Amino acid sequence: MTALFLLDHASVLIFALTGALVASRAQLDVVGFAFIACLTAVGGGTVRDVLLDRNPIFWIANPSFIATACAAALLIFFTAHLFESRYRLLLWLDSLALAVAVPAGVGTALAMAQPLPIVVIMGMVTGCLGGLMRDVVCNEVPLVLKQGELYVTAAFAGSLAAVAVSLITRQELFILTACAGVTWALRAGSLAFGWRLPVYRSRPPRA
Amino acid sequence: MTALFLLDHASVLIFALTGALVASRAQLDVVGFAFIACLTAVGGGTVRDVLLDRNPIFWIANPSFIATACAAALLIFFTAHLFESRYRLLLWLDSLALAVAVPAGVGTALAMAQPLPIVVIMGMVTGCLGGLMRDVVCNEVPLVLKQGELYVTAAFAGSLAAVAVSLITRQELFILTACAGVTWALRAGSLAFGWRLPVYRSRPPRA
Amino acid sequence: MTALFLLDHASVLIFALTGALVASRAQLDVVGFAFIACLTAVGGGTVRDVLLDRNPIFWIANPSFIATACAAALLIFFTAHLFESRYRLLLWLDSLALAVAVPAGVGTALAMAQPLPIVVIMGMVTGCLGGLMRDVVCNEVPLVLKQGELYVTAAFAGSLAAVAVSLITRQELFILTACAGVTWALRAGSLAFGWRLPVYRSRPPRA
Repeated sequence: MTALFLLDHASVLIFALTGALVASRAQLDVVGFAFIACLTAVGGGTVRDVLLDRNPIFWIANPSFIATACAAALLIFFTAHLFESRYRLLLWLDSLALAVAVPAGVGTALAMAQPLPIVVIMGMVTGCLGGLMRDVVCNEVPLVLKQGELYVTAAFAGSLAAVAVSLITRQELFILTACAGVTWALRAGSLAFGWRLPVYRSRPPRA
Repeated sequence: MTALFLLDHASVLIFALTGALVASRAQLDVVGFAFIACLTAVGGGTVRDVLLDRNPIFWIANPSFIATACAAALLIFFTAHLFESRYRLLLWLDSLALAVAVPAGVGTALAMAQPLPIVVIMGMVTGCLGGLMRDVVCNEVPLVLKQGELYVTAAFAGSLAAVAVSLITRQELFILTACAGVTWALRAGSLAFGWRLPVYRSRPPRA
Repeated sequence: MTALFLLDHASVLIFALTGALVASRAQLDVVGFAFIACLTAVGGGTVRDVLLDRNPIFWIANPSFIATACAAALLIFFTAHLFESRYRLLLWLDSLALAVAVPAGVGTALAMAQPLPIVVIMGMVTGCLGGLMRDVVCNEVPLVLKQGELYVTAAFAGSLAAVAVSLITRQELFILTACAGVTWALRAGSLAFGWRLPVYRSRPPRA
């Protein structure tokens, strides 16, 4: 329970930073920063909780998550200009956020004793949907759908790793660490070294 | 209860008018008008009800909300050409809709004795998400995110005002009036006089 | 119950094929295909189940739906290049998906003894929202909103037909067949013969 709580908080914090960075690219005011930061930070976990019918939803049960997200928005509002490339920072923070949100989703579903395919899906939902909402609302090309990058795939592999480890041991720490490690390794490898799966390209697009 | 019911109805009616106006800009047919009108009209309140686990959702409990939204769509379908500037009309109707939807959200959360940060958020969710869905689906630039306008900020200030008044008095009428007044004053001031908060602009965007 | 289960499965299968086709147009990798296929396949039914507070949601109760959607994604990933026009195939598969998803929504709401306006809306929600999510996420022009085509209208007429038949007979087979038939006839007629309702066109758009 505590490990999950920490993961949820870390995921909210880092996703909020990425949301605020996207808000800076859209030149919003400070309340707009907080709005996009909160949407990104709690979006994936909220969908997870609604799908699993957890009541109350995690940030309604504990509004400190909202305070965390707003603090992150403020931090970025006053410091984003210090960074050389906000987009590069966004990409790497987003990779970290993914690597904590996926185990947060997996751990929640495991704690509810959901069947294993649902565990995998909840890892992907929690990891991917907050960033997807951020990008759809701000009209950015969704990171989730960038051609030739591992993103959903990283979330999927991390969730699979967690399920595999969970069949061997019930130590939550091992399960969640394996999940975060695999997710981040694949996403970071994709960003740094261009790791990818073959994409569909048999025809010119939009034909 | 009655004040909230009236607010929900007024919010559905006015948001439906804005949805139909956006549908007229997208040149849809009459069923498309009704679809976008309903999505806009009940979108924010539906998310509020799902998040708060209210069952049944307000328009399922009382389908007359849907009839109201469809009537608004029909009205706009046959009269939109009479207006000088549909976009101007859209902006001002949307400001009214915001100013009734925010207190509808705040009042609902207060009636459920939610913690105060959640009350503020439900005001913003109910006020902002219907219009956001309308704009994302119809591929308009979301009003919520227009640079240098008070929108989310107006909803936030109105919700804060409601919470402040609720600490002084439990008279629902005062709370909801303060909420609507502050929300509309800020949004209308932004539309009419260009009131705004400083936006983030340290760099060229999308760098 | 069995007819509904079959309809849900057929709807998941066909919508997953359309999702994978859109993923092929966006040149995603195989996991991206599966992601968009699942989103499209279960999106509408998931919103239906959340709105009606059905627990657990249909694909959580029975993860075989997810397996079906992933199999459809794989099939398209390896065969999409064989088709003359992927867009034409997409349009016609989507019309079939609509014609099975609308009765799936209507039947579910009828089985829960929802009031008739809600039955109509659940038909439209189940039929239209999966495809709408697919198109919004992949940044395609939503089929739902294509000017001068019957789409929401077909779903609406099919749902109305189901409600009308349900007032005469309680035979599920008749109700669902009428619903599917009317929906598909109108959508296919619109695709093949250009059937349409008059659209709003009193002014140049986006004025």
